[in-house]
Formats: sequence, structure tokens, C-alpha cells
Amino acid sequence: MTRFSPESLLQFVQRVFEAMGCPPADAALAADVLVSADLRGVDSHGVARLPGYVRLQEFGRLNPTPNVRILHETPSTAVLDGDAGLGLVVAPKAMEIALEKASTAGTGWVAVQNSNHFGICGYHALRAVERGCIGWVMTHAGPLVTPTFSKERLLGTNPICVAVPAGEEPPFLADFASTTAAYGKLENLQRKNQPAPTGWVQDRDGNSTTDANAVRQGGALLPLGGDREHGSHKGYGLGAVVDILSGVLSGANYGPWVPPFATAGFMQAGESVGRGTGHFVGAMRVDAFRPAAEFKAHMDTWIRRFRAAEAVEGQRVLVPGDPERETEARLRVEGIPLLDPVVANLREVGAKFSVELVTG
Amino acid sequence: MTRFSPESLLQFVQRVFEAMGCPPADAALAADVLVSADLRGVDSHGVARLPGYVRLQEFGRLNPTPNVRILHETPSTAVLDGDAGLGLVVAPKAMEIALEKASTAGTGWVAVQNSNHFGICGYHALRAVERGCIGWVMTHAGPLVTPTFSKERLLGTNPICVAVPAGEEPPFLADFASTTAAYGKLENLQRKNQPAPTGWVQDRDGNSTTDANAVRQGGALLPLGGDREHGSHKGYGLGAVVDILSGVLSGANYGPWVPPFATAGFMQAGESVGRGTGHFVGAMRVDAFRPAAEFKAHMDTWIRRFRAAEAVEGQRVLVPGDPERETEARLRVEGIPLLDPVVANLREVGAKFSVELVTG
Repeated sequence: MTRFSPESLLQFVQRVFEAMGCPPADAALAADVLVSADLRGVDSHGVARLPGYVRLQEFGRLNPTPNVRILHETPSTAVLDGDAGLGLVVAPKAMEIALEKASTAGTGWVAVQNSNHFGICGYHALRAVERGCIGWVMTHAGPLVTPTFSKERLLGTNPICVAVPAGEEPPFLADFASTTAAYGKLENLQRKNQPAPTGWVQDRDGNSTTDANAVRQGGALLPLGGDREHGSHKGYGLGAVVDILSGVLSGANYGPWVPPFATAGFMQAGESVGRGTGHFVGAMRVDAFRPAAEFKAHMDTWIRRFRAAEAVEGQRVLVPGDPERETEARLRVEGIPLLDPVVANLREVGAKFSVELVTG
Repeated sequence: MTRFSPESLLQFVQRVFEAMGCPPADAALAADVLVSADLRGVDSHGVARLPGYVRLQEFGRLNPTPNVRILHETPSTAVLDGDAGLGLVVAPKAMEIALEKASTAGTGWVAVQNSNHFGICGYHALRAVERGCIGWVMTHAGPLVTPTFSKERLLGTNPICVAVPAGEEPPFLADFASTTAAYGKLENLQRKNQPAPTGWVQDRDGNSTTDANAVRQGGALLPLGGDREHGSHKGYGLGAVVDILSGVLSGANYGPWVPPFATAGFMQAGESVGRGTGHFVGAMRVDAFRPAAEFKAHMDTWIRRFRAAEAVEGQRVLVPGDPERETEARLRVEGIPLLDPVVANLREVGAKFSVELVTG
């Protein structure tokens, strides 16, 4: 494990994206999205993904200079063609359009087609908060998850995020996959050769298992809830809503046809029902509902009441967004820890583009 | 157990609401919402709740002739004052306003304050589907649920519903509480003296328990996921979003201050941070994103692909909305079964207002 300053990672990632042909402003933005994930402790969506974006380009699935454009719009909606660009760059453009719509119509909602993996939802949702809006961000992903009672994987981990501005308190930020556990957590257990808790995965025949490697052997991640008795039909419903808004509404692919991140071949005949990967973002101006100062004061009350709840022994009651913010404060001081295999992968990518990864 | 035709229950409930002072059109609408829940098998939200609405009025919390009015609006948003009316009547008015906004702005979003229990989300969301829109409906409720690691109950079962129109297929309808299990299912176990599955409830000290009566003894329902290891912070986050949109954004109460259904005393000094109970509804015109025929054809593909998924032995893969629709088709033929205590309660209410409950 080696620690890096956010600045050194930002610079490295930006220079790699530039070497891939991205305009400097896009490269800087994309780097900021990835490093922000590492800072918030979501390292499965951080700089460790950089080699994946490089592979995307090698497979001909990534356009470094996309012409992102609106295909259709109304006062509060738009559909965006990401032109096979980096989702890291397309999603902020989508949110910007949603915010512009919200400034005149009260809310703005943008469905995106023909995009790629966009990093963490929270980054994009917080841009709405900075502008006095409640931010909504969701995206689908390649199929790893089985609907309740299914042996077939038909959904991605399909995360959803809602970010809400407060007054003196930091924003409320709920940002979570619609599965019991994120795939990154399962990978951690795989590396350590440890079993997974019941309710996280099933094997290829649809049986509950604690084998953390089951997903690599034809099994699947389970929707939030785990099994029917524990409400997996709700996690399935939530993941389905994310898929429908990101895919069917936008004109992207959906369900089992969503292209997996950074693998080849998905564009062969008969394997597509739409265009690329999709997202769905929204912005709701709080003062389109009640005076902003009033709303923010009540959000402070909400946040403080929940944080002050009497906790079970040895624990604290957290407000959504607290853990990631605490991690970020710590890692800004300590530096961002990267595992040795991740560092090796990054150096390999750097060598390809003659960009040096500087420690410190 | 006695079976009733939908018509006989509709007539009975309508006449009771009329006797309570509701205008005939409001009484008919409120009856339709309640009986619709019974038809869909959600009997915890059906006519069994009628005595609760009567108690609401006895406690001075229900206004049978509300002046429901818009407090603030923008092209795509509105805040509605329910004037302490029946949520069963206020929510359809809110959805109507959302649909009008959507017809010009593409989407419409209405936050409601000063309302009361509105029955099942699905009823209201399906009104949007009838008009070519994706319907969103959520509501908070009195505190029965603990955030992750909390001993205190700070959230309601806070359901969320998203309804999506299809072409030849019936609509997609995800409609679920943000808890592992609905309270109605726990009450069934209480009646049968059976234990609850792990992950449904905790006791007053925050320990996991299978005692179905724990909630009545100071315990709590658990957020979807059950415990932290199984993602309860996600169910908590979802319930919190519902509470913030229904309560903080609308100017209603929120969190532990949300008035419980049909009990007295909540309006005492210091116990209120807003006005009554809140809801949040939305309508998104699908043709504000892509041509409606195209969208609906792809929704048919989505629905058929998921329904055709290879299932684990002895099961079927369902699309959200399938089970309730199948129940409705059956009960329209068989009649709606009501338990004897429910029938006795209804007859008691009928006697109070000189309205007869006719079997058949």
C-alpha cells in the first residue's frame, strides 16, 4: 500500500486522459470525479478504474472528443446523446442542463443515452446542492444482479443518489447501489478469501451461498433485501426503476443488454436494444417549493435530530453522507492509500502514455 | 371471514364518508381508493382503515370539506395545503396538479402539507399512467422505524411508488415500504402468534429479535436490509429521502414529529415542526423524453424479457405490479374477503352513521 496526495493523483489521471485525446478541461473534470471517489473511500470507483477507461478506448467504445448534444427537450426535461464520451464528463454536462432547466421551470430532468461509466453518483448530485437544488442521480450498469427468484442476471448494481442542501450542516447525501452489497465489497472478500454474509450472493442455480467467488462462477449479486422474505422484491423494484429511467426513457440499452464496463464485443448484431449506457439526473430547486432559508433551517433540524438519536451500545446514528465526508477529511490529511496491484496497474497505464505517477 | 362485492363496499364506504360531511364526489373517490387497496390484496390499507378515519374526525384532525389550495408554484412544481382533508382526496388533487404541470412543462412535482393518510401509493401513481406519464408517489407516516444503529423510532414505513406505462403489457408498478416488511405483515404474525423472520424488527434496546410483538413493546420495524451488514443504511437512506421530500420540502412535519394515523394529542405544544402529514407526487410525460410509442414498445420488451427469465425451481420471475394485478382479477370474481373483526368494526361504524353494510 502506498499513499498519494490528491494533487499527484489528479495530475496523473488528467495527463493520461489528455494523452488519450480528451480536451484538457474534460480530462481535468474526469480526473476530479475519479479522485473524489478515492477521497470519499469508494475506491472501487476511483483511480483503480483508470485502466478500464483505457480498455474502453482500445475496444473502440470511447470517444475522447464527443459532441454531446440534446436530442429532445421540454421546459423541464431533456434527452442527451453522450456520443460515446466518458460518463465522467457526460454526466456533469447532463446535470448542468438539469440545473439550467430548474432555474426557469423549478425542476430539470435529463435522461442520457450513449454514455459510459460515470464514476460515483454522489459527485454529480453534489453539483446540484452547490446551486441550491436537491440533486438526483442514477445509472444502470452491466448485468450482475438477479431479480427475485431469477437464475438469470438481468440488472446492474444500479445505484441511486439523492443529495439535499442544508443550512449550517453539510448536505444530506444518500448514495447507494440497489443491491445488498456493492461489488467492491465482494471483491475485498475475494482477495482475503473470506466468505460473504448470507443474502449478498447466490450461485448459478439460484441457491443462497456465502461463497464470495460465486458471482465469477455464474452466480449473481442479490437485490437489496437478499431474498423474498427479507424484501428482495423491493431492491429489485428499485433497481428496475433505475434501469427504466436510465435505459428505456433515454433510448440507451436496458436490462441484460446494458454493456458491461470495459469489455469488448457488446455491439455485435442482436445484442443491442438501444444506444450505449444510460443515466438519469435531476435537479429540484428547493425554493421552487418553499423559501430556501426556511427549507435549510428545517434540514438542519432534521439532520441534528437524527444524529442525536439514542444509539445502540458502541455505535452512532449517522446521517447519510456522514461516513464519506469523514473519510474525505481524514484522507486529505493522510493521503489516499492505494493497494500495490492498483499502483502497478496505474504505472503500466502511465508507461503506455509516457505519464509518470509521482508518489507524494 | 365474509366476502363482499367491490360495489357493496364502495357504496358502504361512500355513504359513511358522506355522513361524516364529505361532499359526494370526495366520498366516492375516497371509497374508491380504499376498496382498490382491498382488491389489490393490500388489506392493511383498505376498508379496514375506515374506523381510523372516523377517529381522526373525532379527534378534530380531519376536515371533511377542505379548501385544498396551492401555496406556491413554478412551471413544474407546486406546494399544496391539504387543509386537514382526507389524504384519500388530497393526493388525487395533488396528482392532478402534477399532471397539468407535466402537460406544459414536461414534468410536474407537488409537495403536500397538512394532509392525512392517503391509502396506497399505487392508486395515485396509476392515475399518471392513464395519462401517459410515469407516476411518482411517496408519503411519510408516524415513527415506527429506527435508523441503522438507533434505538429511537424516527421514521415511518415511508413507502415509495413508481408506475410506468407500457404498450400491450400492463403498467410496471413498483410500490413498497422502505422497511424490510410492511407493518400489516407483522400484524398477521401477531394474530397467529408466530415469530417474525430475523431482520424485520428489533426490541426496545436495539437487539435483533423474532418477537412479532416487539414493536408494540417499544421496539421498532427495521429499514429494508435489516442490519448494517445487509444494507439497512440503504433502506434508512430511502426512507429518509421520502421523509424529506414529503415533510421538509412541503412544510409538513417530519421524522419523529410526523403525526401517527388516527391517534389523538399530537398537536400539543412543542410537538410540531410543520403542518400535519405530507406527501410528494410527481408526473413525468414519457413523450417529454422520447416518442410515446417508441417508449411503450421498449417497455413491453423490458417487461417480457424479465417475465421470461429462467426462474429457480418452483417459482416465477414477476414484474413489479404483477402480484397485485393478479389478486385484483381474482377478487373481482371471488369477492373481497374481510376478517370477522374487520366486519364487526365496519358494522359498528355503520351503526354510528345509520349506514348498512350489505353482504354480497
